[in-house]
Amino acid sequence: MTRFLSKLGGKRFMSFMKHTCGTKLVPQVQVCIRNMNELNRLYCTSKYKQIYLIDEDENTNLDCRYNINKYSCRSHTCGQLKSSNVGERVVLCGWLEYHRMNKFIVLRDSYGETQLLINEKDSQLTKILENLPLESIIQAKGTVLSRPKEMINKKQSTGEIEVLVNELKTLNKAKHNLPFNIREFQKAKESLRMQYRYLDLRFPQMQRNLRARSILIHKMREFLINNHFVDVETPTLFKATPGGAKEFIVPTRFPGEFYSLVQSPQQFKQMLMAGAIDRYFQVARCYRDESSRSDRQPEFTQLDIEMSFTNMNGILMLVEELLFYAWPEFLDTAPVKFPRITYQEAMESYGTDKPDTRFDFKLQDCTDLLKGNQNLVDTEDFGAYFVQFPKEYANLNKRVKEIISNVSARYDKAKLVKSKINTTKEWVDKIGKLLSPAVALKLVENYNIVDETVLFLAYGNKNEVLSLLGNIRVEYVNFLENLGMTIRKDGMHLSWVLDFPLFELSKETGRLQSAHHPFTAPHPEDIHLLATDPLKVRALAYDLVLNGNEIAGGSVRIHDPSLQEAVLDLLNIKRETMQHIIDMLGSGCPPHGGIAFGLDRLLSILLGTTSIRDVIAFPKNFEGRDPLSGAPSPISKEDEKLYHIKSIKT
Amino acid sequence: MTRFLSKLGGKRFMSFMKHTCGTKLVPQVQVCIRNMNELNRLYCTSKYKQIYLIDEDENTNLDCRYNINKYSCRSHTCGQLKSSNVGERVVLCGWLEYHRMNKFIVLRDSYGETQLLINEKDSQLTKILENLPLESIIQAKGTVLSRPKEMINKKQSTGEIEVLVNELKTLNKAKHNLPFNIREFQKAKESLRMQYRYLDLRFPQMQRNLRARSILIHKMREFLINNHFVDVETPTLFKATPGGAKEFIVPTRFPGEFYSLVQSPQQFKQMLMAGAIDRYFQVARCYRDESSRSDRQPEFTQLDIEMSFTNMNGILMLVEELLFYAWPEFLDTAPVKFPRITYQEAMESYGTDKPDTRFDFKLQDCTDLLKGNQNLVDTEDFGAYFVQFPKEYANLNKRVKEIISNVSARYDKAKLVKSKINTTKEWVDKIGKLLSPAVALKLVENYNIVDETVLFLAYGNKNEVLSLLGNIRVEYVNFLENLGMTIRKDGMHLSWVLDFPLFELSKETGRLQSAHHPFTAPHPEDIHLLATDPLKVRALAYDLVLNGNEIAGGSVRIHDPSLQEAVLDLLNIKRETMQHIIDMLGSGCPPHGGIAFGLDRLLSILLGTTSIRDVIAFPKNFEGRDPLSGAPSPISKEDEKLYHIKSIKT
Repeated sequence: MTRFLSKLGGKRFMSFMKHTCGTKLVPQVQVCIRNMNELNRLYCTSKYKQIYLIDEDENTNLDCRYNINKYSCRSHTCGQLKSSNVGERVVLCGWLEYHRMNKFIVLRDSYGETQLLINEKDSQLTKILENLPLESIIQAKGTVLSRPKEMINKKQSTGEIEVLVNELKTLNKAKHNLPFNIREFQKAKESLRMQYRYLDLRFPQMQRNLRARSILIHKMREFLINNHFVDVETPTLFKATPGGAKEFIVPTRFPGEFYSLVQSPQQFKQMLMAGAIDRYFQVARCYRDESSRSDRQPEFTQLDIEMSFTNMNGILMLVEELLFYAWPEFLDTAPVKFPRITYQEAMESYGTDKPDTRFDFKLQDCTDLLKGNQNLVDTEDFGAYFVQFPKEYANLNKRVKEIISNVSARYDKAKLVKSKINTTKEWVDKIGKLLSPAVALKLVENYNIVDETVLFLAYGNKNEVLSLLGNIRVEYVNFLENLGMTIRKDGMHLSWVLDFPLFELSKETGRLQSAHHPFTAPHPEDIHLLATDPLKVRALAYDLVLNGNEIAGGSVRIHDPSLQEAVLDLLNIKRETMQHIIDMLGSGCPPHGGIAFGLDRLLSILLGTTSIRDVIAFPKNFEGRDPLSGAPSPISKEDEKLYHIKSIKT
Repeated sequence: MTRFLSKLGGKRFMSFMKHTCGTKLVPQVQVCIRNMNELNRLYCTSKYKQIYLIDEDENTNLDCRYNINKYSCRSHTCGQLKSSNVGERVVLCGWLEYHRMNKFIVLRDSYGETQLLINEKDSQLTKILENLPLESIIQAKGTVLSRPKEMINKKQSTGEIEVLVNELKTLNKAKHNLPFNIREFQKAKESLRMQYRYLDLRFPQMQRNLRARSILIHKMREFLINNHFVDVETPTLFKATPGGAKEFIVPTRFPGEFYSLVQSPQQFKQMLMAGAIDRYFQVARCYRDESSRSDRQPEFTQLDIEMSFTNMNGILMLVEELLFYAWPEFLDTAPVKFPRITYQEAMESYGTDKPDTRFDFKLQDCTDLLKGNQNLVDTEDFGAYFVQFPKEYANLNKRVKEIISNVSARYDKAKLVKSKINTTKEWVDKIGKLLSPAVALKLVENYNIVDETVLFLAYGNKNEVLSLLGNIRVEYVNFLENLGMTIRKDGMHLSWVLDFPLFELSKETGRLQSAHHPFTAPHPEDIHLLATDPLKVRALAYDLVLNGNEIAGGSVRIHDPSLQEAVLDLLNIKRETMQHIIDMLGSGCPPHGGIAFGLDRLLSILLGTTSIRDVIAFPKNFEGRDPLSGAPSPISKEDEKLYHIKSIKT
C-alpha cells in the first residue's frame, strides 16, 4: 500500500487516502491492491487494448483508485481472469452468451468472455439454467480453475481458465427469441440494428467505437484544458437567421415567435473573444436540417475552438499538436506536421478541395496545348486536363465505363474522353480526329503518355473539368480496390488546404455567397480586390483533410466592424440582421480565429467504419427518423395550442 | 531543457519533443523554458489563483507544453510580469483600460492589468493614443522597468513593474461611448449586461465564473474517465412524450410530425445499460419549457451518470469520491462522506426534502400533545409542530411578520401561531385560550420552551404544517441575516436524502404520479405495498442537497419488465407508449442505477453567485428570451411551408 501511495504522491491524494481509509472504503482499496498484478496483465493483452484503447504507460491508469470493478457487485470483469488467478474466489456478472449440456456457460460482458463450469449433479444450479434464455443477466460466484491443457483457448483473453460455479443468480431474465442474436456471423441489417440499438451496442465493434470515441474526445479536452483553453457551453436555442435554410425551428409560448437550433456556435464564440475568453473550446451539439444528404445526421458533434491574439499559423500549430496529443493509441503513428497545399494546388492536382493523398495519379494540365485547336475552345474559362493510370492499373471494362459515365453525366460543361491506350501510335490516330493530329501527337510527346495505360481526358469549363477528373480519379481507384487491388497507402494522411476563395457564386441565384461563412477574413494581400474582383479574393480560411475527407475547417475572422459591414453588403445580407455582431466587433474585439472539427466524421475515419452511424450511439436513419423511439411523431391538440401553431397536413 | 524532459518523462512526450524540436517549434520551446521561473511565480500569486483556480501542485501545469502564451502574438499576459522580468523585452496585448496624460496606459486582459509607460516626447506613440477610445485593442512592445518605490502597488499582481513602450499598435479600435464601462463600481443592471454580454464577460467576476466552470466540469470528466466510465453523447431530438408537458417541440419536413427536445437522457442511458456500456456519463444539454419559474433556463446542463451491476451504495460512494476529486481548489475543504438522512427525517426535522443544514432550529413534533384537544383536530392527517428561535435571535418585528404571513397564506390546511414569548407564563395564558390551558402548559414543560424566544407553532394537515414551518425556518433566518447577523455556518454542507416516496398525488388530478420518474425502483421491502398502499412505498431514490438546494438526484431503476409494466399501470401510463423501454428491459438488461447533477445550480452555489445566470455564458432572461440576439423571433412564410405549420397569433 505504501508503495502505491508514494508512487501516486500528491498532497491531495494522500488526503484522499487518509479520508477513505477511515471509512468503509478500506476493503475496496485492499481488493484492488491485491489485484494490481492481474490488472496490469489485463491492460497489456492485445484484446483488451483493442477494446479499451488504454494508454500503455504503466503509471497512467493503474493505481487503485481506478479499479474497473469498484462500485460494482463483481470482483472481476469477464475479460480479466488469467491463470495467475487460479484458486481465487471470484464474482462475475454478465450476459448468458451460450450454454451447453447444463455444464458449460459462456458469460459475456463489455470486456470479454469467461467460461463457467457447472457441476451437473448440483440440481439447484442446473435448475436455474433450465430454460434460461440466452442474453439473460446472471451473477456467478465461484473459484478460478486452470483449463485442461487441450481446452486452452489462446485467442481468448481468459482462455487459460474457467470458473467452477458454486452460486448462480439470475439477475434479470431475457425473453426468448430476441430480434437478433449477438453473433458476429449473424449480423442483422442496419434498420433492425437501429431499431434495437441496445442489442446492437453489445457487439464488440460498437463497444470499441463508443469507447474509442469517449477516449479521443477526452484527450482532446485534456490537451486544450492543459493549454489554458476554457470550455464554455453556448446556447443551442438561438435566433432564427433570416433566410437561414437548414435551420430547425422551435415554437415558443410567445405567439408567432420561434427559436432556431444553432448550426454552430460561430456567433457565440466570436462574442466570447470580445468577452476576453481568449482561448475557448467546446464539444458542441449542432443541428442542420438536411435529411436528404446521405450519411448526415440532423444533430451532430463539433469540436469548436477559437483563440484571440493569434494568426493562422498559431491555429494550425495548435491543431497539429492537439491531434498529436489525442491520437488514438491503436493507430500506429501519430501525426506531426501536416503538409500544406493551397486550394488552387488542390484543385489543379486532385480536382477537389478534399484531396485523397493516399495515392498519386495527379491531374495534368494540358490547357495550353489544347488551346492550339481553337475548335475545342467554347468558353472563356477553358481548361483541359487528364489523368493517366499506368499499365498495372489499366482496366477499362464495361463496369468501370458505366461508373465513369454516370460521373460524367453530372457535368454538362466538360467533355470527357476515356481511353484504353494500347499503343500511343494507335491512340494518336484515333484521338487526333478529335483534337487534331498535331495536338494529339504533342500530347503524347510532351506529357509522357505511354502504351498500355488508361487515360481520362477532359476539356471545357475549367472548374467542371477539374471536378469531373477529381471524381474520376477517386472512382477509378475505388473500382480497382473493389477488384482486390491495393492502391491507397495505409494509415492516416492529413493535409491542410489553405487560401480558399472568400466568395463563390451561388448555383441557385448566381450571386456571391460566402465559401466559408460571412465572418471569414479576406487575405490581407487581396483586400484591394474586394471592390473590383471579389471572386479573386482569397480568404484566411483553411480545411484539414484526412484521407480525402474534410474533418475540420476554420478561418481567421474579420475583427474590423467596417470590413464586416462591407462584406455583408457584398453578400447582400442586411446589416441590421447582424447588428449584434457589428456592435460586438466595435466594442473592443481582439483579432481572432478558430476551427471546428466534425467529430463524427473524424471518428468514423479513424475507426474505419463504413458509416458515421457506427460511431454514434443512437443515430437517426437517412430520413432523419429514429427507428428506436419512432421520432418524429404527431403532437397533441394541447401542444398545438400551447405553441400557437397548427399543423398543415399536406 | 533536459531537466524538463526528464521531469515530464513518458515515451510519448519524448517522441513529441523529438518531433517538434525538429521543426519551427524550437524557438517556442526555448521561450517557454526561459520563462519558467516567471510562470512559476505567476501561478503562485493569489490573484492569479483566484481567477484561474489552477492546481497548486507544482508539477501539474508547469511544463513548457502549457505556456499560456503559446500560439499567440504576445510574450506575456497582462497579469504575468514581476520585478524578476525587469530588463526583458516583452510583447503584451489587451484592452485599453485607462490612459492619462498621454503618459500612462493601463492595459487589461483576462489575466490582469499592466501599466505601460509612454515617452511623452515620442510623437508617433502619443499620436496613436490621441482620441483612442477606451476598450480598444492594442499591442505594445517594450521593456520591463521597476516602478519607483513609491509607485509600487502591492494589490496588483504586476504592481512592481511597468513597461516602457517603444512600439504601439492599435489592433482594433473600439467605439466611443460603449453601453457601459468595465468598472466594478459602475456595474450596469442585469438586462443591459445580458444585452451586451460580451462586455459583461470582461469583468473579473464573470471570467472567474466561466473559468471555474470549465475546470470543475473537466475534473469531473477526468475522474469518471479514469474510473472507466464512457462518455456517450445521446440525441436531443427525440420522440415527444404523450402528454409530456414542459417539452419543446421541433417541427420536421414530415407533415404533422415533430421531434421533442429531451428533458434528460434518462431513456437513452438506460438503453446504454442494456447495451453493455456498463459505466456511462455525459455532460448533457437538457431542455425544459417552464419559463414561468424564476431562475430557470429553457436549456440547462446536467452531469448524467449511470452504472450497471451496482446498487444504491455503489452510486453514493461514486458520487462522494467524484466530488472529492473535482472539488474546486478555491474552496477550503473538500467533502469526504456526506451525512445521510431519510426523506421522512428531513421532512420532520426541516420541513423540506432540501434541508439547509447550515443552521439548527429543527422542527419539533408536538402532534400527540395537541391531539389532547380534539377541537384542534379537523383532519385525519393531523400534525402539530413548532420551531423556536432563542433569545439572541428573537426579533418579531413588523417586517418579518409580513414575510411570515405571506408564506403562511400559501397554506390553507395549516394554522400558524407566531409568538414573541416574553415570559412563558404570559404565553401559556395567551396560547392556552387556543390550545387549552393544559395543553399549553405541557407544551412549555415538555419541550423546553423558554422566555424571550420567538416561536412558530403550526397544526392541521401534517404535510402542510411541515412545509409551512420548513419555509418559515428558512425565511426567518434569511430575515435575520439580512439584518447583518450570521446564522448559517460557513462553507459547503452536503447531505444525502434517501428513501423518497415512490409516488405522490398530483395536485392537479389527484391521481398517483411518480415522485422521481416512472423508471425508479421501489424499495424491495415495500414491494408488497404496491398493490395495497402505493403511497406508502418508498423508492430507491436519493437526492444530494448542498446548502439547502438539490444539486443532484437519482435512483436505482426498475430492471424487471413486468415490474415496470405494473408501475406504468399504476401511473395510468399506456404501456404501448413505453414499449421500447419494456422491450429493452426484457432483452437482457443488468440491474442499474444512476444520478444526474444540475451543474448550473451546483456552480452557482460553489461560486456564491446570486443567480445561475452568472455561471452561464449566454443565459436567457426570466421570460426565456435572449436579449442579445432577440430570440425568439418570427419565422418566414417559407419556413412555415417547409415545416407544414401555421402560426396562430392569438
